Amino acid sequence: MGKVFLNIMEPEDVEKIIGDLPVKKSVENVLIKEAHRRVLAEDVYATINLPPFSRASMDGYAVRSEDTFKASEDYPVKLRLLESVGAGDIPKNKVEKGTCIEISTGAPVPEGADGVVMVEVTQRKAKNNNSEEVMVYESVTMGENIAVAGSDVKKGEILLPSGALINSNKIGVLSAIGMKKVPVFAKPKVAVISTGNEIVKNDQKLEYGKIYDINSQTISNAVEECGCTPVYSEIVKDDYKSFMGKINEFKDVDLIITSGGTSAGTGDVLRTVLDELGDVLVHGIAVKPGKPTIVGLIPSENDKKVIIGLPGNPVSALVIFHVFVAPFLRKMASLKDEGGKKQTRELKISRRYHSAKGRLHYVLVKVDKETAIPILKDSGAISSLAEADGFIEIPKNVEIIQEGSYVTVMPLSEL
Amino acid sequence: MGKVFLNIMEPEDVEKIIGDLPVKKSVENVLIKEAHRRVLAEDVYATINLPPFSRASMDGYAVRSEDTFKASEDYPVKLRLLESVGAGDIPKNKVEKGTCIEISTGAPVPEGADGVVMVEVTQRKAKNNNSEEVMVYESVTMGENIAVAGSDVKKGEILLPSGALINSNKIGVLSAIGMKKVPVFAKPKVAVISTGNEIVKNDQKLEYGKIYDINSQTISNAVEECGCTPVYSEIVKDDYKSFMGKINEFKDVDLIITSGGTSAGTGDVLRTVLDELGDVLVHGIAVKPGKPTIVGLIPSENDKKVIIGLPGNPVSALVIFHVFVAPFLRKMASLKDEGGKKQTRELKISRRYHSAKGRLHYVLVKVDKETAIPILKDSGAISSLAEADGFIEIPKNVEIIQEGSYVTVMPLSEL
Repeated sequence: MGKVFLNIMEPEDVEKIIGDLPVKKSVENVLIKEAHRRVLAEDVYATINLPPFSRASMDGYAVRSEDTFKASEDYPVKLRLLESVGAGDIPKNKVEKGTCIEISTGAPVPEGADGVVMVEVTQRKAKNNNSEEVMVYESVTMGENIAVAGSDVKKGEILLPSGALINSNKIGVLSAIGMKKVPVFAKPKVAVISTGNEIVKNDQKLEYGKIYDINSQTISNAVEECGCTPVYSEIVKDDYKSFMGKINEFKDVDLIITSGGTSAGTGDVLRTVLDELGDVLVHGIAVKPGKPTIVGLIPSENDKKVIIGLPGNPVSALVIFHVFVAPFLRKMASLKDEGGKKQTRELKISRRYHSAKGRLHYVLVKVDKETAIPILKDSGAISSLAEADGFIEIPKNVEIIQEGSYVTVMPLSEL
Repeated sequence: MGKVFLNIMEPEDVEKIIGDLPVKKSVENVLIKEAHRRVLAEDVYATINLPPFSRASMDGYAVRSEDTFKASEDYPVKLRLLESVGAGDIPKNKVEKGTCIEISTGAPVPEGADGVVMVEVTQRKAKNNNSEEVMVYESVTMGENIAVAGSDVKKGEILLPSGALINSNKIGVLSAIGMKKVPVFAKPKVAVISTGNEIVKNDQKLEYGKIYDINSQTISNAVEECGCTPVYSEIVKDDYKSFMGKINEFKDVDLIITSGGTSAGTGDVLRTVLDELGDVLVHGIAVKPGKPTIVGLIPSENDKKVIIGLPGNPVSALVIFHVFVAPFLRKMASLKDEGGKKQTRELKISRRYHSAKGRLHYVLVKVDKETAIPILKDSGAISSLAEADGFIEIPKNVEIIQEGSYVTVMPLSEL
């Protein structure tokens, strides 16, 4: 049948194989309202100056700075007030020798003015002829309290590089130049398929011998946390025809993840299908849980499509997803490692832990303050999914972890 | 006019005032597909046993354990094979003395059997009369390789407590009992209003003296990151009538955030409106940037509604949002502090930093590996939004932070 049937590989070799898998990217333009959490697919350049015009950065009076040079507390300079300019207004007058214009923060600096005197160091006086005068008690230097057009960003300068994760502050930068649509990487579409004759969806009756589908939901949500779009599927029966039909149905997705049907026993349908359609790259990883994991490639329209077969056990499926699949999905989604990813944490283990030698072990842990508490249940336990906050890796040559040792806790979810 | 006009308060007093504001919660039922990132509003109990029936946890043969007690490598026990039961099948026969049933992982354990012998320690032999025999080379104890119905979770036990954040593993728990709809806290609706005569939306022409709206987008996205639903608004002109009209338009939101129009100058419209409709709790915080922040309460249908007026400057608005508003929104959204929140980080500052005494300062920083690099631009700079990863707080009585000192970096975005 196959070329590598349960030829168990070391986890680091599997990581390398997955790391070398082909990644296809495409770009789409989305409304700025929909750009949140997306990744820029092009460098964005400033299409206007920022600020777009020279504006006051304080409330006060726009003046010719040289008119104020001699101003002091004892000998204020008197300037004739021409008008008031609020933010959003356009000045009607030019500031000429001996005059000033009242100006609000954000309003355009009138022609002729080269400084703004803060309102706090002035006094205003009405005159007989209905005009007004402003007493200036402090001098202002050229350019003081003015944000010159383009002083923050010049038209044509790069604002954000391709690959930037668009978060709430970066979206402010795109908004500042009035962008309507933003070029972002399309979210990879990932089909998520649960297989097994015993699995039913929640709208079906739970007959004797059946269990509800768990993996469709957990893996779909984990896929979403990696910046990809999950595509749900009906349950697939554990037979060749059903499996082959389902694979062919998902021609337009970027990657297929199945769970179940990967053991070396009777249910090993994915293996058979992959051997027929394409290549099996991995079948079996020297880890516990999660040994019967499959990675394969099948031809797709322009390229090759990756299929990943996770174990059927929900805990194994989720752990294997996080260790081996999530980094690849994040790469497909152009997410850098920092962006949006919950950090691993170094915590003390709450008790001595004994691990069987020979395979790398993943152990679910609950986090309580600065302590990681190992969950001592078999990997089929659903209740451990309720308790777990993350998992730790115990290398294959380590048998004992002493109480109080530091362990690296990886999150089971990015939330 | 007002009761507390720019009566500057210390940040810790403002935090306390905001912490004591009324929080109203409501519950809704969502499909399990839509429950990701939501918060459980009720305790969830197991409506079925998990596993729902006693099942094999290994591939092998279901036997009466006492039949195997004498089995050994040299003296195997011979059992007559009655049938094969796959996952999802129902056994037709009962295991009686001297018989066995082949069983796959996940299949129901047949009546009469109380142990499963692993396939690895057996050998199968065809007999003349078309029947088959299984040689068992190792004994099995009672219950071995069987997951008994309810052994993981008993029907009626609590599965997840109210308040749990539904992430990818917790959704697995809800799926395991076949939940269709999940009771979650409704997402608070938060109106986000930019004010100012100089502000235009990105579908309008940028005339001289105008700038594009930034805060609607940054604050809406930050609101979303706190588990709330932002409600966008048109720009509001900086006059009493426009403002009052807009406040009345948003009767059905849970909270209103405005930006701009909060300074003590001519544009102080929010203050006037709040004084007329309700109460001003805060007007002015002893921080930089962000001093002219307003917190008020206005009567709403059943209760009082909170209005928060952020400064117009995008950097100030975003920092004040993160320090003072985000914790309150997360509380409204029932998000615990850990859940989904990016952690603060202790990093070394890249250079000596000098701060003016007297007010607490927020300084934007760029994070480069383990170093926080202060961004030395005025708080109106859009380019600093592009560079910043977070911000640090410099207490009011600290003037100098020495190069290499540790600072706590708070994220500017949860992404």
